[in-house]
Amino acid sequence: MDWNLNERALAVVEGLLPAAEQLRVQSHSVPGGGRLIDCGVNVSGGLGAGLALAQVCTAGLAEVSIIPGDIGGVGCPYVQVATDNPVAACLLSQYAGWQIAVEKFFGMGSGPMRAVAAREDLYEKLDYREQPSQCIGVLEADQLPDEKVFAFIAERTNLAAEQITLFVAPTASIAGNFQVVARVVETALHKLLELGFDMSRIVSGYGTTPLSPVAGDFLAGIGRTNDAILYGGRVTLWVTGDDDSLSTIGPKVPSVSSQAYGQPFLEIFEAAGRDFYKIDPHLFSPAEIMFQNVETGNVQRFGNVAPDILSRSFGF
Amino acid sequence: MDWNLNERALAVVEGLLPAAEQLRVQSHSVPGGGRLIDCGVNVSGGLGAGLALAQVCTAGLAEVSIIPGDIGGVGCPYVQVATDNPVAACLLSQYAGWQIAVEKFFGMGSGPMRAVAAREDLYEKLDYREQPSQCIGVLEADQLPDEKVFAFIAERTNLAAEQITLFVAPTASIAGNFQVVARVVETALHKLLELGFDMSRIVSGYGTTPLSPVAGDFLAGIGRTNDAILYGGRVTLWVTGDDDSLSTIGPKVPSVSSQAYGQPFLEIFEAAGRDFYKIDPHLFSPAEIMFQNVETGNVQRFGNVAPDILSRSFGF
Amino acid sequence: MDWNLNERALAVVEGLLPAAEQLRVQSHSVPGGGRLIDCGVNVSGGLGAGLALAQVCTAGLAEVSIIPGDIGGVGCPYVQVATDNPVAACLLSQYAGWQIAVEKFFGMGSGPMRAVAAREDLYEKLDYREQPSQCIGVLEADQLPDEKVFAFIAERTNLAAEQITLFVAPTASIAGNFQVVARVVETALHKLLELGFDMSRIVSGYGTTPLSPVAGDFLAGIGRTNDAILYGGRVTLWVTGDDDSLSTIGPKVPSVSSQAYGQPFLEIFEAAGRDFYKIDPHLFSPAEIMFQNVETGNVQRFGNVAPDILSRSFGF
Repeated sequence: MDWNLNERALAVVEGLLPAAEQLRVQSHSVPGGGRLIDCGVNVSGGLGAGLALAQVCTAGLAEVSIIPGDIGGVGCPYVQVATDNPVAACLLSQYAGWQIAVEKFFGMGSGPMRAVAAREDLYEKLDYREQPSQCIGVLEADQLPDEKVFAFIAERTNLAAEQITLFVAPTASIAGNFQVVARVVETALHKLLELGFDMSRIVSGYGTTPLSPVAGDFLAGIGRTNDAILYGGRVTLWVTGDDDSLSTIGPKVPSVSSQAYGQPFLEIFEAAGRDFYKIDPHLFSPAEIMFQNVETGNVQRFGNVAPDILSRSFGF
Repeated sequence: MDWNLNERALAVVEGLLPAAEQLRVQSHSVPGGGRLIDCGVNVSGGLGAGLALAQVCTAGLAEVSIIPGDIGGVGCPYVQVATDNPVAACLLSQYAGWQIAVEKFFGMGSGPMRAVAAREDLYEKLDYREQPSQCIGVLEADQLPDEKVFAFIAERTNLAAEQITLFVAPTASIAGNFQVVARVVETALHKLLELGFDMSRIVSGYGTTPLSPVAGDFLAGIGRTNDAILYGGRVTLWVTGDDDSLSTIGPKVPSVSSQAYGQPFLEIFEAAGRDFYKIDPHLFSPAEIMFQNVETGNVQRFGNVAPDILSRSFGF
Repeated sequence: MDWNLNERALAVVEGLLPAAEQLRVQSHSVPGGGRLIDCGVNVSGGLGAGLALAQVCTAGLAEVSIIPGDIGGVGCPYVQVATDNPVAACLLSQYAGWQIAVEKFFGMGSGPMRAVAAREDLYEKLDYREQPSQCIGVLEADQLPDEKVFAFIAERTNLAAEQITLFVAPTASIAGNFQVVARVVETALHKLLELGFDMSRIVSGYGTTPLSPVAGDFLAGIGRTNDAILYGGRVTLWVTGDDDSLSTIGPKVPSVSSQAYGQPFLEIFEAAGRDFYKIDPHLFSPAEIMFQNVETGNVQRFGNVAPDILSRSFGF
């Protein structure tokens, strides 16, 4: 199936640009061609910009909304994600799987542009690639990408720079922070992909996660957004197929299945000698996952939220 | 007042058809005339299709949404319904009051087509009937309706088959399951109608109910969707008039008023010798109902949710 | 910055008028010129009308929605407000700061018309005023404003009566009650303004508050809507600047900082000899406020909700 991810994302982009001022985002024409939409580097952005980023990242294939919530008796906004096309929305599009390093620029790339470059293993596993006339990407980065970044992406997507739209927001900005926690369903799917689950069995997905307080810097931002999902994320997946495979794989899915589980992410990071690659990659998944088998009616649930760790991480 | 229920529902239909692929629903032209929109028989449908069914059923006169919730500490999506035209949306349109049996086909018919056939007592009680140029119905059924079903409905609505649009989804499908639990406000209204309440006193309605896990078969689906409402449904009605009548009728409204209350619906069904007609019809109503008298300011509340029974029914 | 508050509100108005019948609101042409939209005086209005009023009041610069909630184990709809332009939406537009008394008519005026008259101190403090070709206001009043009220507003806004659109709803009506509790973020901002906080530090705002049951009369309505915010309102503000000033001002913000705090508003009113001006003005703010400093990542939280007082006030 051709999902037209970039085309769908472009429709989201066109819909939000007229409200740019109200959203506090700024659209720039890049000298060498291309369009850059700043959602938090030189502008303050906001909740609406975060929502827009999440919609662009999921190519308009997920409903993202702000919902009320509570952490240990303290009111806190949450983010809700619902999608009937979870693999396309979250893995083919949203997953931040493309590290973009061009000279001094570094950013985690997500959104449908990844499906054009299709450089990641998951595109082979999921047998997907698209060749749109415009491509749309989102960069989690502390600085604006310059024309060299556009040229870099142009080369890898086989497009010209003027066919590229990039959004950018730091992790430690309102919009960037929002779009990262909006990955709650994605983290469950990515974990399942890594565990070798047959992704075609996943029909629909729903997740909620606290909107972590914006951090003061990049590292603290990584800490809080991870904690939001690891200790506060709840995901329901509607799946087909047998129940036994779910019983087998299920316990490995939630964050509690990792030995690293149990303290705020930044403490885990310190314990790993500040080396991301020494952290158990299986840590990165929601606190709670429920599989609802739509063929057998069987329900299986794994993991639990940990409000005490969230309160510590968030400073509540 | 002419509610133009079918016309309103048609506007909802036209709005959703362009997204058919994304919603995983399929529109068919029926050989003898008429349009059939499959939301779960030969397609997998999804949450969006369920939402669409609920909007079609209520003729666009209710706001239906997915909201977060919790059952005994376990995260679970809920469905929220809000309407300022509860009698029109829920009784004249949504109530599944038309059993359609044509040869081997059986389905529960709901939606605005009922107001055209107007064969049920409630249309006399509520003095309503409409004669649109297109009629829209929703069938809760495990199979697709064929042209004989369209002919059957055509005859009873005095329309030609090509003027009929039918949606279909099994109870045990994502979309069908969704549209059934979205009847939470409707069940409160229907109970009040049966109890002889003056329906013109009901100004607005709001309700929430857990989105029960999709069951493995029809019967289990009936069980879980009923339990969602009986033990998890909460309804607020804004009403006019005197408070005494509310004090009198109120205790009879929530499910707890029935002697059958207290175990998952399927167990009640077994205890009744698998005969629906031996189950107390007064069982079918939400767990909790609150009347807010907008004239006197008096608030009266009856019944309570029973998360333990829900957990048992849902397999949490 | 020119917010075009009246122009934005006008767009909201034009969007809702086609649904007037469904919303149970009524648009009148006033004899001397001007448009009056009755949302609850001679019509019953509803939740949708309340939502519309809240959107008009905030000039379309806040997302307002109905969400689920709970008070001491009892289900109760809540109102959620999210805005990236809190000062413009809530203070320049929504705050009910204009008392309009013309002969026997009395109403609290809110909405963007205030920014045209700009008679309140806050317009000087916030250095804002606008001169639109149409102005839009909302009156919280028990009766319809007549042409003298339009003439009064016309004079003070330097417009002709036919350039004025007024909405009206009593506090003790579904729509009026809704729009008053939708001021939850506004009350936090207004308190901060009174405390001398630098409002330019406030980037975004989010709040939730119970939708209090509609009261039987004006005074009871004032009681319940105040209680909804004083004892049930929760606000998150994303702010810039230093943390020390937040630590200093924070404890003064939530309602608990007032000596009057601790009983339903009507009892406070009685204790003050039924004289509003003897009630501590610092009482009027949400139960709970959280500051999230987007520059430092520091989070500070003050106050707490009081479900027991809400239950008493609401009759739960």
